Formats: sequence, structure tokens, C-alpha cells
Amino acid sequence: MDTQELVQSLKVQNDSKIVMLVADGLGGLPLKPGGPTELEAADTPNLDALAQLGVQGAMIPIRPGITPGSGPGHLALFGYDPLRYLIGRGALEATGVGFEVGSNDVAIRCNFCTLDADGNITDRRAGRIPTEQSAPLAKKLRQVSISGVEIFVEPVKEHRFVVILRGEGLGGKVADTDPQRTGVPPLDPQAADEPSEHTAAIAREFLIQAQEILKSEPTANGLTMRGFSAKPDVPNFGEVFGVKAAAIAVYPMYKGLAQLVGMETVGQPGSLSEEIDVLAEAWNDYDFFFVHFKYTDSRGEDGDFDAKIKMIEELDSIIPRIVDLDPTVLTVTADHSTPAKMATHSWHAIPTILAADTCRTDACQKYSETESLVGGLGRFEAVHLMPLLLAHAGRIGKFGA
Amino acid sequence: MDTQELVQSLKVQNDSKIVMLVADGLGGLPLKPGGPTELEAADTPNLDALAQLGVQGAMIPIRPGITPGSGPGHLALFGYDPLRYLIGRGALEATGVGFEVGSNDVAIRCNFCTLDADGNITDRRAGRIPTEQSAPLAKKLRQVSISGVEIFVEPVKEHRFVVILRGEGLGGKVADTDPQRTGVPPLDPQAADEPSEHTAAIAREFLIQAQEILKSEPTANGLTMRGFSAKPDVPNFGEVFGVKAAAIAVYPMYKGLAQLVGMETVGQPGSLSEEIDVLAEAWNDYDFFFVHFKYTDSRGEDGDFDAKIKMIEELDSIIPRIVDLDPTVLTVTADHSTPAKMATHSWHAIPTILAADTCRTDACQKYSETESLVGGLGRFEAVHLMPLLLAHAGRIGKFGA
Repeated sequence: MDTQELVQSLKVQNDSKIVMLVADGLGGLPLKPGGPTELEAADTPNLDALAQLGVQGAMIPIRPGITPGSGPGHLALFGYDPLRYLIGRGALEATGVGFEVGSNDVAIRCNFCTLDADGNITDRRAGRIPTEQSAPLAKKLRQVSISGVEIFVEPVKEHRFVVILRGEGLGGKVADTDPQRTGVPPLDPQAADEPSEHTAAIAREFLIQAQEILKSEPTANGLTMRGFSAKPDVPNFGEVFGVKAAAIAVYPMYKGLAQLVGMETVGQPGSLSEEIDVLAEAWNDYDFFFVHFKYTDSRGEDGDFDAKIKMIEELDSIIPRIVDLDPTVLTVTADHSTPAKMATHSWHAIPTILAADTCRTDACQKYSETESLVGGLGRFEAVHLMPLLLAHAGRIGKFGA
Repeated sequence: MDTQELVQSLKVQNDSKIVMLVADGLGGLPLKPGGPTELEAADTPNLDALAQLGVQGAMIPIRPGITPGSGPGHLALFGYDPLRYLIGRGALEATGVGFEVGSNDVAIRCNFCTLDADGNITDRRAGRIPTEQSAPLAKKLRQVSISGVEIFVEPVKEHRFVVILRGEGLGGKVADTDPQRTGVPPLDPQAADEPSEHTAAIAREFLIQAQEILKSEPTANGLTMRGFSAKPDVPNFGEVFGVKAAAIAVYPMYKGLAQLVGMETVGQPGSLSEEIDVLAEAWNDYDFFFVHFKYTDSRGEDGDFDAKIKMIEELDSIIPRIVDLDPTVLTVTADHSTPAKMATHSWHAIPTILAADTCRTDACQKYSETESLVGGLGRFEAVHLMPLLLAHAGRIGKFGA
């Protein structure tokens, strides 16, 4: 029995409300040793008040030293063991462009490439063809027609697009056709198991028809396929944890990740302030609210320390609106750190606040990476956050008599 | 290999003495944010001196957010993975009334219920019949006789009693006969596997004979069976850890839990002071002493903050008597928290002291939930306490060359 199964077996219904506010990439690093992180340099009176009321901890996103992408980072936040439940790259790419991957779907990341007269690859990314040119080309591939299967083609960015095959009994285990080098032709799609033979045959037919459509293109005259993946077989969030869950996000990727585990997406917010509008409107209809704020990560990825501080201060400014809704449990956390100093995701622990009436108050006075080290939640892996939230909401019964 | 198997493979004999003092439900919560917990409000000079001498830590009973009952809570303290070794509810109920469940036994929690003329349940708890009436009635059921099996019937409280079937090859997997609603008859006992078919047949016969005995009772004229369970298949504590272990407790439940893992119960103490008398008398005959103090939990369950403080001060007062025995390792801990604020068991970390000559002293000056957060033991799951005690007692050899 793992923790998630244990929690599922002990779940209790009540009318508590839980808010999980995820400030993507929140955790940071000081620019110089001994200096403040972005969070510590920011002026955050509302988050600090919350830290004083509740408990704080240093949350390890996956395992020490492991830097998560958005998929595993969010799966762990949602209480799923990220080493057990893997989201295939194709499914994640489709999710990222707002395509809802269904249980009969196999999603495939595709690259436009350049082929020479002999059919050998000369450029694996078709000269990073601009999106304005690649998107219409991807849509042109919607002409491909194969009997017995529904096909979706969605542009992503530059040379990248995604193909989704929909049909009964399609296996997801097909090897990449990208040979990872130039001077050779794309590989034939090879199935790794019986149910994937059918998928491989369809992919082969897709490649033939697509090639015909692309053959006269100057650079994007070929394509390769990678990351074939079926919808991950993830237990339903609501069934596991006994909550009706709403996801509030601006970006398709995060709506998609929430949908993958079975949350409902609500609203079409375009900003954090609009997200809180949606939260207030949906308040009576759900038990659990995942609210995603993207720009702490974006400014971290930009390597812009000061701009990330501004985003943290924007986050701080909406805290009173959430507190006014009187949630039973409010957590402020992240899926990973994105220190501006590194301009990329990192493995560093995520300062996390949990505020509820059943908190054993700790000595923390500020929301801060440094203070989180001595907070009441201690150091814990992200997969344990959901059980803690549910416990503080009175939604987990006693284990054993 | 799990930790317990590792420790078993490395165990070393010596003449050290280990005392595990368990103050049931010790951990608490402040009544208001920022206030003291019960332990922090108590005057505990002796425990504080121990905290200064040794190291402190914040112990997670099971997993973050999981609130243990007494069974899993103690199994973890005794070094058993509580998610692997589960004690059935019947076995725990029998244990709680002092019945020693053996390896050929299946224990069943039973409820008296009220049946109408058609045999449908009108009250699943027979009007919560008082113990004075139900106990003699339970004993009357000892008249039931079934060939090839020995039967024990033990009163518990109000409508509850326990039946133990003793015989060769009795499986423990039989479904409850309590339909969990009124207006329908009790269910037939159904076996979930082959060895349990025999158990189900005996249970069926028991129900027929018991019904005959109860039929003219005014309210308790029927019964239901729940939580069928065989003795859990737990490796012997002494064999695993290489210690001769004594359990000293006032309440049958805790003696029973210790017996389930193979400890010997010693003495018949009626108070904490008498428990320490027993400890002193048994000092030369055992290596490991589990001493259980109940009333910190009881007053927590009552929701009485001040009364729980008094119990903690009583606990403090006997510490010098234990220290005078000069144990190699002394730990003061709990099976779970029972904050008076919540008046029930909780998932919160348990402040734990470990005192031994091999402690790397930490900065803690008081035995306290808050100080435990920065103590030398850090934050750890209860299942790791036993290896720590054994290590400090010099009872675990080096792993690998």
C-alpha cells in the first residue's frame, strides 16, 4: 500500500475548502552568497502575515537534486508519485497547446526537417522555420486521411507540431523516427509491443501521405516523430482524494495537467486578478481549487531578478482576496524553483506555506527560503503536500483503531 | 531489503539497556496561533534537563498528514512499517480487552442489534445498551458450541463484544455481516478465499445458535459481525532487534500490542508510579523496556488543555527515577499527538527526546514541539526510531566493510 492508496482508503467528506496557490518557479537563489533570494527581496506583507499564522516548510519537488519539468512537478503537487506516474512527452506537448488527450488517443511530438534528394536529413529542425510559416504547414497536414482512425494535427512553435491519433486499441509504445543525426533518412516507426503495431502502421501511412504534401516545400520538406504516448493511466484526483476539484489557470499546459488527473478547468482568466475573480465565482461549486500563477517562472526563466520580484509582489497583492473567501486550508507553493540567477528550472527546495486553524504555529515571521528551513513543516517531498492539506481540512480519517 | 531486515542482519548483542517511554498522545497544539502547546505550557524541569543532555526531533507518526490509531502508531514505534503490517480490527478489539490473540485464532468485533419480527435490523447498536446489561449477555453467548473449534466471547463496552474462533486452518478473510443500515436483515458471512470458507461456516453456525439464545431479549435480540481478522503475521521483536523486551502498561490495549510483536508483559501496575516500580524490579531481566503512559492521551481526548498539562507534569516527575536506573538509551516519545484543541488523535509531529552518551548534543533547552523542529534528530518517521535507539545502544554493527 502506498501513501496515495492509504489516503484514498481513509478519505472523509465534509464541506471544507482547500486552496492550492501555485506560483510557478517561485523558489530562487541569491545573486551573491549571503544575499536575499527574489522572494526575500520582495515586499510581501500579506504572504508574511500568512506565514506567521500558519506553518512553513522547505518542499523538495521530486527527490533531492532532481529538477522537475512542469509535468512531474505538478503531478507531485497533486499527490501523485512522480516516479510512478509518467506523462509521455507527446501527451504533454498536446496538453501544452490545449488539446485534451483522451483515453483512445496516442499523441506524437513531430518536427519538420529538411531532406536532401536522397531522402537523408540535412537539418533536423528545418532551419527552425518561423511559426508563421510552420503553423499553416502543420494545418495543411490535416489533409492526411487514414481509415479507422481520427487524426488531429496541432501547430506548436517553430519546427514543432503535434499529431494525435484517435482510435480503438492504439498502443503508445512506438520508437522515435528521429535518428538524432543528419546524413541519414528518418527511421521507420517501430512498435515495442503488440498493441502498438497498429499505431506504428498508422504512423507509417501518415508519414507517407505527409511526405507527399510537404515534398515541394523549400526547407520543411520532411518530418520526424518522437515521444509517442497514450494518455497516462492516472487515478482520478476526485476519486482518490474525495474532493470536487477546480483548476484555474491562464496557460493551456496547466489546465491540461489538471485535466489529466481529472480536475475541471473553470473560467477563461487572462491574468492573476481574473483568476481570483474565477475563484470567487466558483467558490460554492467546488471543494478544492488549484490556482496557477505563471509569471514568477517566466521572469525566472528570463534571468530577470528584479522582474521576478515584481511578479512575487503581484502575487502578494491578491492574497487578501483569497483570505477573504475564508478557505479552511490555504497553501502557497510552487512546482519547482526557477532562480533568476540560473534562468532555468532547478531542484532547490520550494518555500511552502500551509495556513489552517489546526496549524502548530512555528517561529517563522516571513515567507522566505531561509525561514522555511526552520518551519513547522520541516523538509518534505511535494507528494506529501496533498495529505497534509486534506488532514488540516479534516478530510482524512484515522488509520487503524 | 527494508530497514527492518537490514537492522536484523546487523544486530549485535551487548548488555545495554534501552527504555522507550511512550506518553500516549503527547504532542499538542496551541489554543491560539503563537501560544504554547500543552507540553510547552507545562513545568517540566526533568524532561528539559534530558532534552539538554540528549537530542530532540520532530517525529512523523506514519506519513505526513496521516493520523494513526493506537495499532499503527505503536507498530511504527516498535520499528515495523505500519503500511506493511496491518492489525485487523477484530484482533485489535480482542487485544484491547486483554485477550491474547494466538496464531490459530480469528477475532471478530460483534455488535448487539435490535431485530423486528421479520428479522430486519431496527437499531444497529441495540439502543447502545449499557455495559451492565450487555456484558452478562455476551457471556451468555459462551454457551454456543461448535465441534472442532474453541470459542471465546469477551464483553467490550455497551453494544460491543468480541468473539474469537480458535482452530486449525481458519482464514481471516470474511466480509462483515453488518449491512450498515436498518430495515434489512444482517448479511450472511461470506468468505473471500478458500481458507476462510471454514471460518465463514463456523460464523454462520455461531450466528444461528446466538440468535436462539438472544431471541427473547427486549432490545439486544440480534448481532452482527465485523472486522474478522487473524493474528497479524509480524516478525518477532526479539528476533528482529536482538533484545529481550518487556512491556509495562496499565491498559490491556498496549500490553496486547506489545504481545502481538512478541514482547513480554510484566507486572500489573495501576499507575505511572507503579509502572516505574515494575521497571526497577524487572531491570536486570530484560534489555528493552516499553513503558506506556495513557493519561496524556486521555486528557487530550477530553479536550482539557489544563488537565493534559497536569499529566505531562506527572510524567516529568518520574523521569529522575528512570534516569537513576542509568539506562544506556532513554527515549521519551508518543504514538501520535492528541491536541486538546482537537480532542482527538492527530497527524502532527511528535516531539521526541533521545538521550545517550553517544548523542551529538543539539541546542535544545526545553522539551517542546517548537524546539524539536531544530533538534539533532531532525524530522523523521517513527519507524526509524528503533534503529536509532539500537545504534545508540551499540546494538547495530557496521553495514558493509
